[in-house]
Amino acid sequence: MYDTTKPYISEIERIIRTTWDTKYLRVDERGIHKKKPFDYTAMFFDHVDGIGTKGMDHWRKRTFDAAVTDVLAMNLNDFCLARAIPTSLCDHIFLPTDDREAIVQIVSHLAAECNIRHIAITAGETAVHDNMNGMEISMMMSGFKRSVEPNQYREGDILIGIESSGAHASGFTRIHSVYDDWESLPESITTPTLIYIDVVDSIDRAFGIHGMTHITGGAFTKIKRFLGTCDAHIGRSHNLEPHSIFWDLLEKGIPEKEMYQTFNCGIGFVIGVPVVEKSVCLSTLKEAKFNADIIGNVTSGSGNVHIQSKFSDQEYTY
Amino acid sequence: MYDTTKPYISEIERIIRTTWDTKYLRVDERGIHKKKPFDYTAMFFDHVDGIGTKGMDHWRKRTFDAAVTDVLAMNLNDFCLARAIPTSLCDHIFLPTDDREAIVQIVSHLAAECNIRHIAITAGETAVHDNMNGMEISMMMSGFKRSVEPNQYREGDILIGIESSGAHASGFTRIHSVYDDWESLPESITTPTLIYIDVVDSIDRAFGIHGMTHITGGAFTKIKRFLGTCDAHIGRSHNLEPHSIFWDLLEKGIPEKEMYQTFNCGIGFVIGVPVVEKSVCLSTLKEAKFNADIIGNVTSGSGNVHIQSKFSDQEYTY
Repeated sequence: MYDTTKPYISEIERIIRTTWDTKYLRVDERGIHKKKPFDYTAMFFDHVDGIGTKGMDHWRKRTFDAAVTDVLAMNLNDFCLARAIPTSLCDHIFLPTDDREAIVQIVSHLAAECNIRHIAITAGETAVHDNMNGMEISMMMSGFKRSVEPNQYREGDILIGIESSGAHASGFTRIHSVYDDWESLPESITTPTLIYIDVVDSIDRAFGIHGMTHITGGAFTKIKRFLGTCDAHIGRSHNLEPHSIFWDLLEKGIPEKEMYQTFNCGIGFVIGVPVVEKSVCLSTLKEAKFNADIIGNVTSGSGNVHIQSKFSDQEYTY
Repeated sequence: MYDTTKPYISEIERIIRTTWDTKYLRVDERGIHKKKPFDYTAMFFDHVDGIGTKGMDHWRKRTFDAAVTDVLAMNLNDFCLARAIPTSLCDHIFLPTDDREAIVQIVSHLAAECNIRHIAITAGETAVHDNMNGMEISMMMSGFKRSVEPNQYREGDILIGIESSGAHASGFTRIHSVYDDWESLPESITTPTLIYIDVVDSIDRAFGIHGMTHITGGAFTKIKRFLGTCDAHIGRSHNLEPHSIFWDLLEKGIPEKEMYQTFNCGIGFVIGVPVVEKSVCLSTLKEAKFNADIIGNVTSGSGNVHIQSKFSDQEYTY
């Protein structure tokens, strides 16, 4: 439901309404009607995420389309891990000023992305907080599970890494802490997060992924959650090189071990697949125009992640 | 789904899990299972709202329980208008510092309220934004419609007003604009919004409400949305007096006409019922310990709201 007393509400409503008739849902003023492909007997799945501190950079540079892509990616990539299909979302946009151009651009880009992905925007709020330095978009995504297969790496799995586009939307409080001022931040800082759900879903349906991890806050330590008693080994002889921003951060004094705990260092998503599937998985990723490579494997162990640093000849265990 | 790399996550997860088995849903790490009373063939309903600028006051005074009540009220009272039953919610908490005490108190009070109301917390996020002066909680609530009856006042309806507890969570940017500093704000400023859904739902089920309005941002102009071609007339000979904060705001220079466009002025919720039901409705409200009174009626007209001011002998039309 939309609050009709909000600024530019008729304009916002007109844009939002373009998402109200999808493959899965039909929305009207009264509520949300389900259509046949919406499997309402399946488990439901919800997720919430925002842009985080990167919202300050997007506001400063007025990169609103990239801001929308960031928050969508943070939610869609986690839906991917849960093997869930998103069918609706609610947005809560926070801006420091009542900026019509920003609001309309955010809502328009969001609606366009939703229309491509069969997602209805079922509720939303636009809030002007004059106590905020920068912007934020909170997004709650809902859908249903297409599979109840657990997300779990297995002994013998090959680990495939998929490229990131840069720092994505994680570790920005730390990034801001090492640059003296806005002007010294690299131009690439607002490059949006890559959305992996489309290609990873198709690989999973076709070949069966065992474990998968979206490398966000916590970076490679996130893999531990899905390891059970196995160990993950990530080598350095792959082609997913850290972007220049990561070398910059290292040079500005962030310890090398912390780099892999905080930043994706060039690898935005990791999947674990049986050895026999590695070639088809890599060629599917290549067809989808993602740079990907074999980065390591999974062995028996005790739930640790071992990483050969790309920044030196060191190896770290997490 | 919860992000396990967030601060105090094991503590937060332990608290959230107490809401994972309700009358309607059972939640686990994999997803959301529906139980029998969850009518998944009904229309679904989603709503999003936050505390807004009042979050600055709650942060300053560390009134975290009241902050949670405010954001719950903003969502539950709008569920009430839609004749919808809330079954789950997602929270997105924004704080300016990594304050363990605040986070645990917010999540604990939220879980306690959810447990009373059969609402599962299905996802959440805690974000520390050092670019924020104050706090915010964004909440997305989901559920299903118990009735598709439209929310519409009808000619001949009696309007019953239900007391507010003060300014609730609306108009706070305007409130802050007329006070010189934090110290001069009245002590009562952080009093939480009243939650009307329980009593209003029971009145609607028993006696059938025609139209209803939650008096929030936009205040009495919100009634217009549900009037069609009728007019609403609100008199001054009722017992719902403006709280001292409203007299203060008037005295500090807010024009009288604007008062009824921005603030609830003592009336937090309005319902329109057939004349024959007015006494049973008033006694139900009295039993539920709400001060309520007949504030006016609905006639044929052209979609306007006429209000006799409680602050003077003026009458205003919106």
